[in-house]
Amino acid sequence: MARITPMSGFPEYLPAGRMVEQRVVDTLREVFELHGFASVQTRAVETLQMLNRKGEITKEVYTVRRIHAKENDTDTLGLHFDLTVPFARYVLENAGRLQFPFRRYQIQPAWRGERPQEGRYREFWQADIDIVGQGTLAFHHDAEVVLVMLEALQRLHNELGIPEVLLHANNRKLVQGFYEGLGVTDPLAAIQIVDKLNKVGSQTVRELLAAQAVMPDAIERILKLASIRTSNDAFIEQVYALGVSNTLVETGVAELAAFIKDLSARFPNQVMADLKIARGLDYYTGSVFEIDIPALPTLGTVCAGGRYDALATDGKNSYPGVGISFGITRVLAPLLTRGAVTANRPVPSAVLVAVDAEETRNVAATVATALRAHGVACEVSPTALAYGKQIMTADRRGIPYVWFGGLLGSVKDIRTGEQMDADANCWMPPTADLKPAIVYDAIR
Amino acid sequence: MARITPMSGFPEYLPAGRMVEQRVVDTLREVFELHGFASVQTRAVETLQMLNRKGEITKEVYTVRRIHAKENDTDTLGLHFDLTVPFARYVLENAGRLQFPFRRYQIQPAWRGERPQEGRYREFWQADIDIVGQGTLAFHHDAEVVLVMLEALQRLHNELGIPEVLLHANNRKLVQGFYEGLGVTDPLAAIQIVDKLNKVGSQTVRELLAAQAVMPDAIERILKLASIRTSNDAFIEQVYALGVSNTLVETGVAELAAFIKDLSARFPNQVMADLKIARGLDYYTGSVFEIDIPALPTLGTVCAGGRYDALATDGKNSYPGVGISFGITRVLAPLLTRGAVTANRPVPSAVLVAVDAEETRNVAATVATALRAHGVACEVSPTALAYGKQIMTADRRGIPYVWFGGLLGSVKDIRTGEQMDADANCWMPPTADLKPAIVYDAIR
Repeated sequence: MARITPMSGFPEYLPAGRMVEQRVVDTLREVFELHGFASVQTRAVETLQMLNRKGEITKEVYTVRRIHAKENDTDTLGLHFDLTVPFARYVLENAGRLQFPFRRYQIQPAWRGERPQEGRYREFWQADIDIVGQGTLAFHHDAEVVLVMLEALQRLHNELGIPEVLLHANNRKLVQGFYEGLGVTDPLAAIQIVDKLNKVGSQTVRELLAAQAVMPDAIERILKLASIRTSNDAFIEQVYALGVSNTLVETGVAELAAFIKDLSARFPNQVMADLKIARGLDYYTGSVFEIDIPALPTLGTVCAGGRYDALATDGKNSYPGVGISFGITRVLAPLLTRGAVTANRPVPSAVLVAVDAEETRNVAATVATALRAHGVACEVSPTALAYGKQIMTADRRGIPYVWFGGLLGSVKDIRTGEQMDADANCWMPPTADLKPAIVYDAIR
Repeated sequence: MARITPMSGFPEYLPAGRMVEQRVVDTLREVFELHGFASVQTRAVETLQMLNRKGEITKEVYTVRRIHAKENDTDTLGLHFDLTVPFARYVLENAGRLQFPFRRYQIQPAWRGERPQEGRYREFWQADIDIVGQGTLAFHHDAEVVLVMLEALQRLHNELGIPEVLLHANNRKLVQGFYEGLGVTDPLAAIQIVDKLNKVGSQTVRELLAAQAVMPDAIERILKLASIRTSNDAFIEQVYALGVSNTLVETGVAELAAFIKDLSARFPNQVMADLKIARGLDYYTGSVFEIDIPALPTLGTVCAGGRYDALATDGKNSYPGVGISFGITRVLAPLLTRGAVTANRPVPSAVLVAVDAEETRNVAATVATALRAHGVACEVSPTALAYGKQIMTADRRGIPYVWFGGLLGSVKDIRTGEQMDADANCWMPPTADLKPAIVYDAIR
């Protein structure tokens, strides 16, 4: 067989890297559940009709069809490209059997047929939390979902060395009211143009807005609005200094101020009003936010989300929601690739149980069963070679302890060479050795 | 929007059902890790060339392509239809960075474009364990992977009420040697025919074997061999009574006897030699086995696997392995659909923290933070309505406790009406209420 090479855009990890990913997922799950979010998983595929609702991302969808589908069968299925669209569909499909406000988390891969490049993945894991109401959803949930995510990211900071994050927040009502006050005829189109500001620069944004028939003075004020960044409510004065006000602007300003106040009370140096944040998607209707890692600017936005009042609606009810999505792969894949974070051994086993001779392999199996019964992961030596060779096997696999003899035997720490008598029914390694530990350098 | 209906063959669960699935996955993971298996995840897609290696299943593959791929682009990717082929590819791709014998578990969905029908799924979760050597792999690992899986299934029996399982084992060497001894020219084709015995019946198998130019007397002996079922080594005598022997038969008989002995020592009433077990796939070379649940015959085979000596091979090395795969969806989906097993509440929250008034929502948030700090999942009431309405919210969401007041407040068990003063920094609910519990009827 030809040599097998990795597939670009589809990251896979060696076991030690996978342990880091599992730890991240476990940590997220623990935090989300402590806050009363229930797990949901949706199927990998949606109908193309469902995936097309938002329009914008269609070009990146992977379609799915049976290999022996007839030539003229039309594709009807696609892999989901995020977890929001499947969740909206799930809520509509199951609305009668869910209790609102419904709090769910969802940790799954999504797929996009992007051109592979640094930091872009074709298969990537996301962790989403959303709170969805039936008919109405109180505003305080906007800050709540972000607080939960910031708490989870703080745990990843403490336990895995992921650097501290920074939240950038804005409000669609503020921006839309401001644009309308300037006489912009298609505020959503203008929002999608300003969303590209970081990528294309202010000169291109000027040209794109002018092509939308936005007047030169309005363009300058739009760019001034987008340049406002404050870590407290100082943004209010700066907005009104631009001379545009109406009810929508006032509502948006008040919401953003309340949002920033709630969040900076808990995360004082990690929150700012940043009025260029737009989020290109058309379903956001209020708060919008992004999180990045200032120490790792090349990662770009690692979390994003916002308030949507009309994403999910059936004939009878609308299901307003607010959610935030964390790009697990976007953060982990680069760190794992360069070994900035890893596990201190690539196997769960804390102990290799040595085998005297093939005839007495069952004695070693009995020892292993006794160790496992109180939670010590272990494996029996694959061979009955000389003890030195069995110790080498443990060493090669990163297993710290080797057990010799029966239930009343002895156990050797092969790193120090220390050996002591022990009872397999109760012996425990030091806590630090019981499970693989995450180790990391100062991450740059 | 049109009413949304479930998609046939792609099961999804409500939150309480998902909790059962999570518990199953957590239990499998715990058992596999206690036995020193490391987690691996592979991407959802493989090249079609890779998926085609085994031949047989090609017709059921889902192909994947970008929606705007050019008309004449050929499909080159497909969703994996099991976890064995991706694992073989992963081993070859990473062989230089793995330590052998390599022990891995993998819990992921797989996809097949099957015609949807009872018990067939198009997206289904599997849990696989495999042990793979470089060049050689000792025979004792064949029984080991099955022991690990039986231990995991025993845990599911104890904790979720999944009925007891029964292992059926055979050996390819025995069967192949026997067929060769009868002069069958294409033993693999004959094995694949006998594999259909349960589905098509003995008369059809006779006809299919006759079409392969197998002589009538040989056909009868093949069917007699397939009818042998013993819970101990009594099968040996019955095999030799059929009058066919050669070195391969003798090796196979000895392996199967050793395998049955190892397994029935630990699971005395759950193991049998069953000589009709064939496994259609062409890569098995020794032990083959299937597990079913006698009390739930409609589920069919819930685990299957075997020994493969040549699935993964590059120019330099071969990577013989043995593995077993558990069909999580095959077992869970029917049980969850009919409510035979569920969780006793659909939310992680043990406590709803009541809110006096919107102005004092931060007091409730402080209580919630204190509870979470020692592991009590909770949520703050979405509204500040009358306490009676907040208690109704808890009741509707299945949350057993409501907290009133500040850190030194009081907590009410809304099922009994009992209320007591409590300190949010240390109060714990009874262990049975801390997390949602799995509940089940006697499963039929």
